[in-house]
Amino acid sequence: RNGLVDLSHGAGGRAMGQLIEGIFHKAFDNDWLRAGNDQSAFAVPGGRMVMTSDGYVVSPLFFPGGNIGSLAVHGTINDVAMAGAVPLYLSASFIIEEGFPLADLARIAETMGEASREAGVPIITGDTKVVERGKADGVFISTAGVGVVPPSLDLRSDAARPGDAVIVSGSIGEHGVAVMSKRENLEFDVDIVSDTAALHGLTAAMVEVGGAHLRLMRDPTRGGLAATLNEIANQSKVGFRIDEDGIPMRPEVAAACEFLGLDPLNVANEGKLVAVVEPEGADAILAAMRNHPLGRDAAIIGHAVADEHCFVQMETSFGGGRIVDWLSGEQLPRIC
Amino acid sequence: RNGLVDLSHGAGGRAMGQLIEGIFHKAFDNDWLRAGNDQSAFAVPGGRMVMTSDGYVVSPLFFPGGNIGSLAVHGTINDVAMAGAVPLYLSASFIIEEGFPLADLARIAETMGEASREAGVPIITGDTKVVERGKADGVFISTAGVGVVPPSLDLRSDAARPGDAVIVSGSIGEHGVAVMSKRENLEFDVDIVSDTAALHGLTAAMVEVGGAHLRLMRDPTRGGLAATLNEIANQSKVGFRIDEDGIPMRPEVAAACEFLGLDPLNVANEGKLVAVVEPEGADAILAAMRNHPLGRDAAIIGHAVADEHCFVQMETSFGGGRIVDWLSGEQLPRIC
Ligand SMILES: Nc1ncnc2c1ncn2[C@@H]1O[C@H](COP(=O)(O)OP(=O)(O)OP(=O)(O)O)[C@@H](O)[C@H]1O
Ligand SMILES: Nc1ncnc2c1ncn2[C@@H]1O[C@H](COP(=O)(O)OP(=O)(O)OP(=O)(O)O)[C@@H](O)[C@H]1O
Ligand SMILES: [Mg+2]
Ligand SMILES: [Mg+2]
Ligand SMILES: [Mg+2]
Ligand SMILES: [Mg+2]
Ligand SMILES: [Mg+2]
Ligand SMILES: [Mg+2]
Repeated sequence: RNGLVDLSHGAGGRAMGQLIEGIFHKAFDNDWLRAGNDQSAFAVPGGRMVMTSDGYVVSPLFFPGGNIGSLAVHGTINDVAMAGAVPLYLSASFIIEEGFPLADLARIAETMGEASREAGVPIITGDTKVVERGKADGVFISTAGVGVVPPSLDLRSDAARPGDAVIVSGSIGEHGVAVMSKRENLEFDVDIVSDTAALHGLTAAMVEVGGAHLRLMRDPTRGGLAATLNEIANQSKVGFRIDEDGIPMRPEVAAACEFLGLDPLNVANEGKLVAVVEPEGADAILAAMRNHPLGRDAAIIGHAVADEHCFVQMETSFGGGRIVDWLSGEQLPRIC
Repeated sequence: RNGLVDLSHGAGGRAMGQLIEGIFHKAFDNDWLRAGNDQSAFAVPGGRMVMTSDGYVVSPLFFPGGNIGSLAVHGTINDVAMAGAVPLYLSASFIIEEGFPLADLARIAETMGEASREAGVPIITGDTKVVERGKADGVFISTAGVGVVPPSLDLRSDAARPGDAVIVSGSIGEHGVAVMSKRENLEFDVDIVSDTAALHGLTAAMVEVGGAHLRLMRDPTRGGLAATLNEIANQSKVGFRIDEDGIPMRPEVAAACEFLGLDPLNVANEGKLVAVVEPEGADAILAAMRNHPLGRDAAIIGHAVADEHCFVQMETSFGGGRIVDWLSGEQLPRIC
């Protein structure tokens, strides 16, 4: 039908079945989906599990370094991984605008399939809805994920304590800048691509060497490093002191942020994590991270302090200090 | 801010945190959410689990008998329940259009909270994205659910065998007619309300008396009873013979379908199930269903037959026969 999604593709009839089989089952390619039940079954060993879910509405859908599909797989795996858990399975729910090109949908699904296979985390169940032209924006995807937590690990957002070290796994700001520059149709001299990546390999390495010293982990997505540190500060009732010069950042990202009028601390990352660790474990955990391809630029950027105001304070490159608030730059809607 | 959702509510900053706490945490009200981690943890006994996910795009958002929130809770619980599983936890991902009234969002969230508490299945994790005015249609919700399968139960879509009985749990067509009549601004003499309901209590009763004789269960949502029977027929490689007079249907639904030009067999249900059962178990399972408030009108409507064409054939009220195809009536987009 001229290569576009139409309302019948979401109506529960034969056209929907063909779309699901021809695009999604083909791209995700596993026996759970082929079984075609209303749900998918799997065996678990028993113990503690985690569940998480995110919606993806990024605009544009395709950006340097990835598309909404890779984001939907990586982002949900990462929220599972931030518990120190081993991600097991994903679900994917699609809301598609009538008239969306089937070829673009196939490309997105194929990217999801690749990301899921590369991560070893299959998409075992899904859903497809279609809304009228003008009632959505191309495609929205919501993924949910489940995973198992290694025995004895219990990371919590309120676990940071004064004296703990704050580690960032690598250079910040790349995802947000890649999406914004595509959206604004900007070309920089140096290509900036999204850092979108699945972090469960990195977190497994961290848990292995330093699980007992890990307080908590979080991926600094929307709101960037600034929002993540403020959230942890408020939940753990501590302050943070960080050192601007210690924060890994590529110079072209710094330059692009300056050009775009963004504070890189507020810009979303999709393949980075922040870990708060007991000081005794910091060196071993940092070394393990640097040994992993996704943690090569990991750095200790500061530490937690006692502070009843829960402020995040930064020593700037110029030697002064400032308070890092949630959103000091512009809002960045639809970045993920 | 004049009571409307704005883009900052999805940007990862303070406004988003306040929205999540003030509306969602308040309505869903549980300690998993209050812990505020990127994911939520729970203990499981080990064994077989299931996972499922659905997106909800129903239009209008509020309809007789429920709203998008009750649908999102019931629908996902039901897809877990169709495996004979005990639903444990839900996630909820919201995509909200800028300008959507906060009061409506709160009403939807409160309905979800009530539905979830009534079912005993908490919403333990969620997500909130906001898109610009005109890029969505009020609110879309995707829920995922997990549950545990009782040992020894393994229901599958390809398990129907010739001779099996087909049971429907109650009168069909109510959800679709309720939504369509609201959408078309029709008033019927008798109010038709959606049948939206969580079926896991009913399925637990069925599993208890007749688990060994249950072949499979499915909720006839989009595409209605016709689509569900055709799907099962194709997956199990059988045909079905059903009896029109045996299908429970309220006369006002039949009348409304006639008025709307719909075939009630194609109309979505949100609180009904179809079970295929071994003949030896049919009476016991039917009796258990009729003992449950949500199965009082349960009826055997036909049986599976050997048929290499996998046709669903119906003996009509007038004594003739016809083939029941996937969608013989109009398409019904955005019914759930
Ligand atoms: N986008 C998708 N990707 C992968 N699998 C999908 C997708 N959409 C649907 N499926 C799979 O197709 C099958 C049928 O899905 P469908 O949504 O019709 O079932 P349902 O949820 O029981 O019905 P409804 O959505 O009307 O409530 C399921 O096995 C589901 O996992
Ligand atoms: N609509 C919602 N209902 C219930 N809880 C929600 C909702 N939206 C977010 N939450 C909860 O609020 C917390 C923060 O969610 P948030 O989406 O900011 O985390 P994240 O997924 O790690 O970040 P991002 O979505 O930017 O990747 C989580 O505990 C999440 O479960
Ligand atoms: Mg996330
Ligand atoms: Mg579905
Ligand atoms: Mg996160
Ligand atoms: Mg469903
Ligand atoms: Mg989220
Ligand atoms: Mg179903």
